[in-house]
Amino acid sequence: MIIDCHGHYTTAPGAHDVWRTAQTAAFKAGGDVNAAYPSISDDEIRDTIEHNQLRLLRERGADMTVFSPRASTMAHHVGNEAVSLAWTRRCNDLIKRVVGLFPRTFVGVCQLPQSPGIPISHSVAELERCVTELGFIGCNLNPDPSGGHWTGPPLTDRAWYPFYERMTELDVPAMVHVSGSCNANFHATGAHYINADTTAFMQFLQGDLFRNFPALRFIIPHGGGAVPYHWGRYRGLADMLGRPPLREHVMRNVFFDTCVYHQPGIDLLFRVIDVDNILFGSEMVGAVRGIDPETGHHFDDTKRYIDALAIPEADKRRVFEGNARRVYPRLDAILKGQGR
Amino acid sequence: MIIDCHGHYTTAPGAHDVWRTAQTAAFKAGGDVNAAYPSISDDEIRDTIEHNQLRLLRERGADMTVFSPRASTMAHHVGNEAVSLAWTRRCNDLIKRVVGLFPRTFVGVCQLPQSPGIPISHSVAELERCVTELGFIGCNLNPDPSGGHWTGPPLTDRAWYPFYERMTELDVPAMVHVSGSCNANFHATGAHYINADTTAFMQFLQGDLFRNFPALRFIIPHGGGAVPYHWGRYRGLADMLGRPPLREHVMRNVFFDTCVYHQPGIDLLFRVIDVDNILFGSEMVGAVRGIDPETGHHFDDTKRYIDALAIPEADKRRVFEGNARRVYPRLDAILKGQGR
Repeated sequence: MIIDCHGHYTTAPGAHDVWRTAQTAAFKAGGDVNAAYPSISDDEIRDTIEHNQLRLLRERGADMTVFSPRASTMAHHVGNEAVSLAWTRRCNDLIKRVVGLFPRTFVGVCQLPQSPGIPISHSVAELERCVTELGFIGCNLNPDPSGGHWTGPPLTDRAWYPFYERMTELDVPAMVHVSGSCNANFHATGAHYINADTTAFMQFLQGDLFRNFPALRFIIPHGGGAVPYHWGRYRGLADMLGRPPLREHVMRNVFFDTCVYHQPGIDLLFRVIDVDNILFGSEMVGAVRGIDPETGHHFDDTKRYIDALAIPEADKRRVFEGNARRVYPRLDAILKGQGR
Repeated sequence: MIIDCHGHYTTAPGAHDVWRTAQTAAFKAGGDVNAAYPSISDDEIRDTIEHNQLRLLRERGADMTVFSPRASTMAHHVGNEAVSLAWTRRCNDLIKRVVGLFPRTFVGVCQLPQSPGIPISHSVAELERCVTELGFIGCNLNPDPSGGHWTGPPLTDRAWYPFYERMTELDVPAMVHVSGSCNANFHATGAHYINADTTAFMQFLQGDLFRNFPALRFIIPHGGGAVPYHWGRYRGLADMLGRPPLREHVMRNVFFDTCVYHQPGIDLLFRVIDVDNILFGSEMVGAVRGIDPETGHHFDDTKRYIDALAIPEADKRRVFEGNARRVYPRLDAILKGQGR
């Protein structure tokens, strides 16, 4: 089967976004940031999915998407901790409804109630709720809740450890994923996302996080940011900084998805990164929705690029399925429960 | 001939750095930040060059380096405008001495006296001095003088225009090059450099700068950051944002160097980027100084990767020489004056 490890609910019903707009307005006005959530019918949710993600999934020949709230609107920098928590719970509950309606096609990954300057330990409860009560299989961890100002500590700082401890106990990985940018220098999907991917990898390279957490697992999305293209630089920097080879030091714990929107980029990814470290992902319907005039196909139809690779079929199976079942053990358990 | 467009004086005499250390100490103590510069003999300078850049240039078979002050120690975020100006003038004067000693091997590019929050118009005088008095052919423009906090406006903001006007009049390009990072999230050469390259490109994509300055030229170093690896993403984003195709919108004015430290990365660069937009560069002696155990050669011996490309010899000549003479017209004039 073919599992897309990277999908966001970018097509959520309008009422969901209306609630958020009202919430942020209420925050500014000193009002209630945890107001009642609107009634959204199952049919409305089905409609947004069937005409978008599900349609494209079928057209492109994939079977399942690891599904999380829209990344760009997590917006941890908006409001305060209470705003973030109330919004995050609504977003995760909505994902749970999608999974409930399409249990063989979607599996949940949660947003976290991060907020600039607030200890990450405050996000543990929502992780637990999503994993143990809602049946989610992982989380999206924002390395920069300030939205492009990077005011917090690096991911290797001990400040993050309480969260990593719970991740390890629950045996769930995190996708390192920033949200929107409130810094005019950084376009969200064109700069901030890719920079964050590159930054996270370099933090892992500099640090010793995986010595302390040998079972901790991160997916760095968007093909690992700039890292595979500069793989020689990173191997050389590891050497200059006296770190062990990347294969031992970082790549037992870090995985890249295939959200790279052209064939040459995917070719490079597979040429330099071990196939066991690559998970199929498309991030559709997402940052880049158009059709590539050079190919006549959607930029984000990343399955085509992998299909075109001259690699053994067994390797493709690992990228499409096996690696995801290994990196997300709770996904594997769910699939086995479904007889898959 | 073979022109390396990207070299910094990373091996400057110790007295130069001692002066800087004293200067920053003086700033903190409220003392003189423009103290007398130590006497450094020609032999000392010759020595630092002959055993490093010149030796490697000869060993690797290149002829000339476009040479500028060490990027990581520009440190525009340290001190204030007066500190930056005094340091910048010393750095540029030192480059001029190298060029004077090796006029057929080095040509100067200047650092600018940028400082966070200070208008870029204050850097015009030093650009003029370096170009018209010292014979330099371009400048390094720091898109983030705050050193990793990104507190200034994007490169497409009108705040930068006074500088671009003078660049255009002088007919000199700028390499977009950040300096050291004072943000713990960003390792300088492993994250901040690459992120800045990616960020600058996306700013150009979002903006309309080159409609207003059709003759303005930028070199984005380190192989264009993450951009070639994500070329499909950028083509798709241009489309989504309603911008013209990148070839017209950005790539008449933007060039990438070849500071990508492994063969697969260089292969990708040449596969997706027009050969007219690629300038040979190595940034040696720089960020990555070791030997790649996979090849037995220095990571930053980028000429080897280009030599290995299966592209027409005429294309290699453009990357090694022709494009540089076109992007830096003052280099072309100097070379012609030398009968080259």
